[in-house]
Amino acid sequence: MPLSQPVEHTPRWDTVTIVGMGMIGTSLGIELMRRGVAGQVIGVGRDPKKLHMAETMGACTSVSTSLPASVTDTQLVVVCTPVSRIVADVRQAAACCRHETLITDVGSTKAAIVAELDRGLPPAARFIGSHPLAGSEKTGPTAAMQNLFEGRTVVVTPGKATRPADAAQIAAFWKALGAKVTQMDPAEHDRVVAGSSHLPHLVSSALAAATPRECLPLVAGGWADTTRVAGGDPQLWTDILLENKDNVLASLATFETVLGRFRQALSHNDARALVEVLQEAKRIRDALGS
Amino acid sequence: MPLSQPVEHTPRWDTVTIVGMGMIGTSLGIELMRRGVAGQVIGVGRDPKKLHMAETMGACTSVSTSLPASVTDTQLVVVCTPVSRIVADVRQAAACCRHETLITDVGSTKAAIVAELDRGLPPAARFIGSHPLAGSEKTGPTAAMQNLFEGRTVVVTPGKATRPADAAQIAAFWKALGAKVTQMDPAEHDRVVAGSSHLPHLVSSALAAATPRECLPLVAGGWADTTRVAGGDPQLWTDILLENKDNVLASLATFETVLGRFRQALSHNDARALVEVLQEAKRIRDALGS
Repeated sequence: MPLSQPVEHTPRWDTVTIVGMGMIGTSLGIELMRRGVAGQVIGVGRDPKKLHMAETMGACTSVSTSLPASVTDTQLVVVCTPVSRIVADVRQAAACCRHETLITDVGSTKAAIVAELDRGLPPAARFIGSHPLAGSEKTGPTAAMQNLFEGRTVVVTPGKATRPADAAQIAAFWKALGAKVTQMDPAEHDRVVAGSSHLPHLVSSALAAATPRECLPLVAGGWADTTRVAGGDPQLWTDILLENKDNVLASLATFETVLGRFRQALSHNDARALVEVLQEAKRIRDALGS
Repeated sequence: MPLSQPVEHTPRWDTVTIVGMGMIGTSLGIELMRRGVAGQVIGVGRDPKKLHMAETMGACTSVSTSLPASVTDTQLVVVCTPVSRIVADVRQAAACCRHETLITDVGSTKAAIVAELDRGLPPAARFIGSHPLAGSEKTGPTAAMQNLFEGRTVVVTPGKATRPADAAQIAAFWKALGAKVTQMDPAEHDRVVAGSSHLPHLVSSALAAATPRECLPLVAGGWADTTRVAGGDPQLWTDILLENKDNVLASLATFETVLGRFRQALSHNDARALVEVLQEAKRIRDALGS
């Protein structure tokens, strides 16, 4: 059992290995230590400087540049590398686990990853996908944030072979960090996040890229908010967009239809049609709150 | 002379009339009073409840629902009504001024307004357009903010008939509220804000309107930031977009070209092209800072 006896009602894991000590991995380690959810946290990465930084920030009790050496005595591995590396990193971790080990990830896409990892891992390891809806356009351990998962939604995406008890363990893990957990089918997850996250990133980036330099002195809060996520890591987002290509293209087509309504209404000085689209947008935006 | 003797190096106006006590008008009044830039502030509006609220918030020393009665003994009138009402409100104010009175506005578009008001006002009044790049998607006096203009850019847009001394007075007025002032030709201003403000609003609204309801439970900070300004007032933004129609349509065409590059790159699994657009976007976004 990866879950040891609860201490003061908090699920407690003896050892958790975090693979990838970037913004999310480091934030995760900080919370595991700060909340006493894990006794030991091993931080794994390729860059010793970043690992040292993460350790200094209190995100782990030890660090290593060797993934295989870091998972032999762990109960839970959380893979926090870019989506294009998740499958390989999970496979490598699974191949080196000695005990019953749960492996999860924090990737923004789930269908292809879960399909690849749902079966065929060595018997000592079982993978259950996760996607915490938390992050930042900033990268690296220095961008880590305390309480990153508090009140945030984490989607857990069991595959066909997932044991319900394993999914419950992973859900309990995220809840111990303050998150609200919801379960979704991996393909359904990818369809929904195309609209809620991937299209917004693409649109925000397109807006920034389409802004002539001469306009920058006159930008204010509106431009700054609308383009904020365009500051994110281009390689990381290329991976995400390609991994969820079909859903993103479908969401983009819907978006382009709405843009067309704007263009049409403007071209024809159609104030009523303009107000209508803007009201529709406001209704949906206001439904969220600030 | 609208400018009385400086008090402790601050330009001081005996009486300033603010027409339209919404978010901007009320924030303006609060700063004029708080900084001692004006001795008296008369708040003018159509809704007695909102006027009372603005007065309670310290934004004015008296209120009135009559524009004509509120400008007879004032040195400066600031018209803070929606762009579609500015020309009529300035004309009405100008017709009722008894002394040499400067009139400015805070409208988001300038070319048509300045062209209409640059000449032909009664001799007692002279109009010089302003556009403070400050605001919020929230409306009404209760959304007013202290220090709204501190560090913000205000564009002053002299017309062909504007006397340089008048433009300097208006610049000094905004500087006294902490703003950085820049002068621009009205048509050039409209061209630039189409890209820096009006297109971002349109894009943000299109994204909100294109988001299926089922996606809302999985939105996070990215969607929230990118769609924030879509919560703005639909009628107010309809006026702005229509007033700056040609420039907004041109900016929209540029934006759609970038969207097309994204669509093309995604459809062809062209990671290099995707990284390129995302890097371009990041360079422009990072040039601004957070």
